[in-house]
Amino acid sequence: MTLQAGAITQALGGKLLGDPARVIARLAPLESARPDELAYLADARLAHWLASTQAGCLIVGPAQAQAAAARGDCIVADDPLLYFARLTQLWKQRHGGAARPGIHPSAVVEDGAWVDPSASVGALSFIGRGARIGAHTVIRERVTVAEGCAIGARCLIESGAVIGGDGFGFAPHEGAWVKIEQLGAVRIGDDVEIGANTCIDRGALQDTVIENGAKLDNLIQIGHNCRIGQHTIMAGCVGVAGSAHIGAHCAVGGAGMISGHLSIADNVTISGGTLVPDSITKPGHYTGIYPIADDAAWKKNAAALRRLYELRARVKRLEQRLNLSHQE
Amino acid sequence: MTLQAGAITQALGGKLLGDPARVIARLAPLESARPDELAYLADARLAHWLASTQAGCLIVGPAQAQAAAARGDCIVADDPLLYFARLTQLWKQRHGGAARPGIHPSAVVEDGAWVDPSASVGALSFIGRGARIGAHTVIRERVTVAEGCAIGARCLIESGAVIGGDGFGFAPHEGAWVKIEQLGAVRIGDDVEIGANTCIDRGALQDTVIENGAKLDNLIQIGHNCRIGQHTIMAGCVGVAGSAHIGAHCAVGGAGMISGHLSIADNVTISGGTLVPDSITKPGHYTGIYPIADDAAWKKNAAALRRLYELRARVKRLEQRLNLSHQE
Amino acid sequence: MTLQAGAITQALGGKLLGDPARVIARLAPLESARPDELAYLADARLAHWLASTQAGCLIVGPAQAQAAAARGDCIVADDPLLYFARLTQLWKQRHGGAARPGIHPSAVVEDGAWVDPSASVGALSFIGRGARIGAHTVIRERVTVAEGCAIGARCLIESGAVIGGDGFGFAPHEGAWVKIEQLGAVRIGDDVEIGANTCIDRGALQDTVIENGAKLDNLIQIGHNCRIGQHTIMAGCVGVAGSAHIGAHCAVGGAGMISGHLSIADNVTISGGTLVPDSITKPGHYTGIYPIADDAAWKKNAAALRRLYELRARVKRLEQRLNLSHQE
Repeated sequence: MTLQAGAITQALGGKLLGDPARVIARLAPLESARPDELAYLADARLAHWLASTQAGCLIVGPAQAQAAAARGDCIVADDPLLYFARLTQLWKQRHGGAARPGIHPSAVVEDGAWVDPSASVGALSFIGRGARIGAHTVIRERVTVAEGCAIGARCLIESGAVIGGDGFGFAPHEGAWVKIEQLGAVRIGDDVEIGANTCIDRGALQDTVIENGAKLDNLIQIGHNCRIGQHTIMAGCVGVAGSAHIGAHCAVGGAGMISGHLSIADNVTISGGTLVPDSITKPGHYTGIYPIADDAAWKKNAAALRRLYELRARVKRLEQRLNLSHQE
Repeated sequence: MTLQAGAITQALGGKLLGDPARVIARLAPLESARPDELAYLADARLAHWLASTQAGCLIVGPAQAQAAAARGDCIVADDPLLYFARLTQLWKQRHGGAARPGIHPSAVVEDGAWVDPSASVGALSFIGRGARIGAHTVIRERVTVAEGCAIGARCLIESGAVIGGDGFGFAPHEGAWVKIEQLGAVRIGDDVEIGANTCIDRGALQDTVIENGAKLDNLIQIGHNCRIGQHTIMAGCVGVAGSAHIGAHCAVGGAGMISGHLSIADNVTISGGTLVPDSITKPGHYTGIYPIADDAAWKKNAAALRRLYELRARVKRLEQRLNLSHQE
Repeated sequence: MTLQAGAITQALGGKLLGDPARVIARLAPLESARPDELAYLADARLAHWLASTQAGCLIVGPAQAQAAAARGDCIVADDPLLYFARLTQLWKQRHGGAARPGIHPSAVVEDGAWVDPSASVGALSFIGRGARIGAHTVIRERVTVAEGCAIGARCLIESGAVIGGDGFGFAPHEGAWVKIEQLGAVRIGDDVEIGANTCIDRGALQDTVIENGAKLDNLIQIGHNCRIGQHTIMAGCVGVAGSAHIGAHCAVGGAGMISGHLSIADNVTISGGTLVPDSITKPGHYTGIYPIADDAAWKKNAAALRRLYELRARVKRLEQRLNLSHQE
């Protein structure tokens, strides 16, 4: 399981400064790479590693080409991280790691489901009637794609994901809850990745929609009727309540929580751990995280925080006493 | 897959003002409904939609009956949302969406488990020995109901749920953790809904209990020995630590976190994203969410918050200097 | 399904004060134990229960031995909680609850995977090619251990866990995301417990590592390249972002969230619900939780908090007016 440097540039382009016959045994991080390994340098702030890395070959940008070539073999690429991403794909494909098309015999595909012949359905997965799996999509092991849900082309659905569970809807009646059957489905575009044990609920009346190119990490909850825009990315443990519409090119950090029945504009970044209670109409970076402290300091601060509005009133009284005006 | 308006009122009651032969092709939201669709109006604040909705038929309350009839066909019901909920159930049933009784051949039901003949066990689910599944309960695909756990009648357990995993209990010993085997089980009442990939741990010695009518959304964690009261409802991503007792008719918003070894009274509402560290003895609505802001404003505020107790001391000193008393 | 008191001390040691023939029907909590049940008293603050518990037999420490013996049968052990833990193990083993070695016929074990003959692989689980399952490890039902991942000896992997899903890595390119294939695996040590529906992602280039004796509860997300130290314990719903290195003997409370690319020292405790944005180099207990309040009080406080930095400026102005100095 090796690749020669020349075979890499032949497949992916880039300019090789060094020996095309050099054998690459593994890809490795810059700081631990050994002489039979290849690493990449994408961030100019890490250029000091050029002096010490033991990597046998480096992927670098044009600005680092001279320094990298001075220390040994390198591949010069306009965007080293992108080049590295494509190299990982090449590596996996050449070493037999790509999913093979077809339906594993232990999977259950109901009558009336349609799986593209180029798609792969892993062991012990379930595809409900009327569901559609697009070309070159990979459904890993132990995935649920429920009745009527559609997944586009070139998607990856990780193990344990549940696409098309019921949305959470009830009518209150005499102290109990009467179920509102969820009659919509889930529609997932092309080039979408859905992480392990992530749940995407079917819509109440219309479909929950995940647009092209969106990437969702593990253990994410997407409520019914949501729309997640193109190329939006969400880290693990994010929750999105029902009927939230999130724009394109957004990013939500781990455990960010989006309330329901709101809209978020395109190009919004939400920090991890932040709760979004209302719509966001302006692109930008939003945060709401309680600062961490040692427990004793936190306790003192939390006690003060509980009576913050009183403190504000006291400051106002002081200002009045000193005839200092303040416009609130 | 259509229903006539007259068939709806014949099945569900209500008063039809209009043509019983009107064909309803789909149920739809008020704002997007088309002439062959039916919508409902439950919230009087949305009554302005009466003027513009294209819905062929509306479900409305008595107060909106006249205005709705003036624009076209409508069904008048005392509680339009409840009527709509029952209509979704009728719709699903008439269109073949209801789960069929029986055990899917790919499911694994161990010896000594008991599944009511009217219950449904979906593909690739596991029912452990000694487990019991009540009448008309639907176990979806890829569900685990572990050894000895009991589920009542008319429940719905969504895909990926794990009922009866081990509670999390260990004794510390010389820097390591010695497992406390979890000898209790999980007991779920009637009319309970458990969401996708939700986990309910078995009790350490006695049972973890979910009472009648409770509704739990996706990706919820219920620790060992918990008791969740009747008709309590929890949104996605909620966590409840071990030995918490939550009352009846409570509501916990998404990602609310309840600490262990505490009690929460009946009729308590916890806002999403709120951590509950101690018992709550009084019904009411409780919240603890850090307010979101643009990242730059958040940074300034967080810096101030880290030294809030100092600010409080400074205000006190100012008050003393001005001989202003303050009782803390 | 009973044990005699004498059989317990014969198997586990400790000093029995009372009748070796006493029949124990169940283990039970101190406060609800009945005359045919055994309970333990590990916390001296609960010693008042000695006067009222109905337990037929008690496990107590040396300090409580005399008082416990005065009320009835007891077993005296140096560490009553540890003794109780071992008793739960004995109980489970004697009553046929231990997992039997072997691979359930409904499990899918790919060619090139290796399962120790003493290990147990539950129904509907998937073990990918090249994966290794160590001696006496129990893989419950519906677990995924993906290609190339290794699990040590005496581990317990609960239902729905996903070991070795892809890490979450992409290179941005013209507004879209290009996948970085995840070429590492997951390496889990000995005596590790992984909870239900917990996800541990494979490394990008090297392995994600869970060290010996770590205990992870349900619905936890561990990102790629993480290292979780020996005997570290994490409660449910915790998230750890990629490339975080967490030390040994740490504890993370429920829904604690650890950012990526940081290090946490040994012996650090993180309170539940706390977000850790940066490395922690000093052992200790750290907290960052917004205090809960009734919703009306929270609203007033949150309004004040949004303008806290202004309040700080106002206090500074007051101090200047009164010629009070303050060093920030």
